Amino acid sequence: MKIEGKNYRTIWFDEETSEVNIIDQTKLPHKFVIKKINNFDDAFNAIKKMEVRGAPLIGAMAAYGISLAAKNNPSDDALKQASTRLINSRPTAINLRWAVDIMNAELKDLPENERYLASIKKSQSICDEDVAYCKKIGEFGNKIITDFLKRTNKKEVNILTHCNAGWLATIDWGTATSPIYHAFKEGIKIHVWVDETRPRYQGSSITSFELNEEGIPNTIIADNTGGLLMQKGMVDLCITGADRVTANGDAANKIGTYLKALAARDNNVPFYVALPSSTIDWSTSEFKNIPIEERSSQELSHVVGIDDNNELKRVRIYPKESKSLNLAFDITPAQYITGLITERGVCEASNDALKKLFSNG
Amino acid sequence: MKIEGKNYRTIWFDEETSEVNIIDQTKLPHKFVIKKINNFDDAFNAIKKMEVRGAPLIGAMAAYGISLAAKNNPSDDALKQASTRLINSRPTAINLRWAVDIMNAELKDLPENERYLASIKKSQSICDEDVAYCKKIGEFGNKIITDFLKRTNKKEVNILTHCNAGWLATIDWGTATSPIYHAFKEGIKIHVWVDETRPRYQGSSITSFELNEEGIPNTIIADNTGGLLMQKGMVDLCITGADRVTANGDAANKIGTYLKALAARDNNVPFYVALPSSTIDWSTSEFKNIPIEERSSQELSHVVGIDDNNELKRVRIYPKESKSLNLAFDITPAQYITGLITERGVCEASNDALKKLFSNG
Repeated sequence: MKIEGKNYRTIWFDEETSEVNIIDQTKLPHKFVIKKINNFDDAFNAIKKMEVRGAPLIGAMAAYGISLAAKNNPSDDALKQASTRLINSRPTAINLRWAVDIMNAELKDLPENERYLASIKKSQSICDEDVAYCKKIGEFGNKIITDFLKRTNKKEVNILTHCNAGWLATIDWGTATSPIYHAFKEGIKIHVWVDETRPRYQGSSITSFELNEEGIPNTIIADNTGGLLMQKGMVDLCITGADRVTANGDAANKIGTYLKALAARDNNVPFYVALPSSTIDWSTSEFKNIPIEERSSQELSHVVGIDDNNELKRVRIYPKESKSLNLAFDITPAQYITGLITERGVCEASNDALKKLFSNG
Repeated sequence: MKIEGKNYRTIWFDEETSEVNIIDQTKLPHKFVIKKINNFDDAFNAIKKMEVRGAPLIGAMAAYGISLAAKNNPSDDALKQASTRLINSRPTAINLRWAVDIMNAELKDLPENERYLASIKKSQSICDEDVAYCKKIGEFGNKIITDFLKRTNKKEVNILTHCNAGWLATIDWGTATSPIYHAFKEGIKIHVWVDETRPRYQGSSITSFELNEEGIPNTIIADNTGGLLMQKGMVDLCITGADRVTANGDAANKIGTYLKALAARDNNVPFYVALPSSTIDWSTSEFKNIPIEERSSQELSHVVGIDDNNELKRVRIYPKESKSLNLAFDITPAQYITGLITERGVCEASNDALKKLFSNG
């Protein structure tokens, strides 16, 4: 998708310089900075510091992280150490483990001197596959939107989304936003309610930014607001992404998602979760077992913005003496999810439906 | 209650200087500033600019506003004009109209030259009554807390509150916080989860501040977080205030309250709304008729905090091109409210129960 009119992916390998390029998302929306990653530590830190974020994108970054580790030392021991560090860098998103497992399976039977090049190739194919999957999610999700317009005879659709499950959370297209981009490209009149998504504001800083760059009408709201909008009939559909979906269809996603799902249910607004299959954790059925990442309380107490001189400034908003707790994800139980939108199609959020959809291949 | 160890009310009349004193709440938590109000326009602006806020306190400020209007011009016409301006200054809180009506009823049969002094006296009695009512709310609410501890055999209670319905939203004690202060003074071990309450952060800026000043353990969380804490069993009770309660027991309160009530219901956490009877709108039974205040979108897109040099700085956090919508209140339907805590006692959130509780006197 586009930034300043030019098409980008969120991560790409430069064959000439042998560097991985990323868009440094900690600088958005105020600055558009491309960062070059050429060693394992930088890849690890890009995930840890959230220069890249979003479950599918951190999966891709982890794949390239293994590649950069292999460039330096392709031994089994070195790759094992790199894998462990990557998997533990962020605990909730399952795509990290998924990508690291794929890379290790690809490399384990290769001689050490072939591992670096093979790993770059595999990382690229993980990215290409993610793009193809997100495109399919968009096509299936677009059908939900067009069906909604047909069924209701409405001329415009209002979609609420939480956090950023946009193209900047994936490689391209996004998960929750892919249906929106597909519908918009078909000429459907669409407006997006963007939850700002405290504490890190990924909704206002990233989702609204990327929708603006594509020319899609959107309005930022406080995370507190979605319930009222649903009470007032101002939301037609909710679509969010997920960081991990259990085998039963429960969805771990950015903190606050669960509250919107409850409001959607209370007001009969369909609530969809969009995800590539790399986000499904087939080994977990009990959502209470999903680890919830706790992050620095300074993400809550301090805010970064642009001052009157157009300079980035960090200010403290909480009383100095106050404690705060920063939990990054919550769980939306399957019962509150109208459907899961995947690259294979849309299914009920249940073990049976997921198994059926992914039973062959 | 205390600030820097000294007892204050939020608003008081200085007989010597004939000035109304308020705590300028737009400066909290970073600066503690007492502001002197000596004319109608300043009183009106104190409400409009939210130097005073919280339904009971803006009722009291409005009463003093009428007094200051009467000081300048005690004619029927002047008072009528002042009344209209005050009532329209903020549309959702019903206490404004309540206070203005009381003042006009008090003054209408008095000769003009007696109106100023009579209005000061009445304003003071409105404040004293609010203090007495909030104290009663605290006593009744404290019983809910002690009953909870007895019933569950727990040694500590975790209470979640939204926005600020603390003593700084009233004259003293607060509504939602009064049970907390009463329980704490009795030696009950208590911890408060404070929703930061975007966009104006009244939770972190005011509720956490006032709890700190009283030495009550509290932890600030993003508004998104309460649902997860309830899923994890970390919240025992929710208590919020209200800006208007309909005759049927539906509660308009700071935007986001409704989402917490839904999560409380989904996790079997009792959800109480604390209010003095001045907050009941007996003339409205259909909550969809309550006007919802829309405020400047800059309250969302810009944030004020303290920089590294200990100076107040305002920064823009949203993309410059993005639109935002700032609605200030939502409605929690009576069905999600476990009980209303009033100065007369605790009752079910229903027309019958409210009528019964307030039937005599």
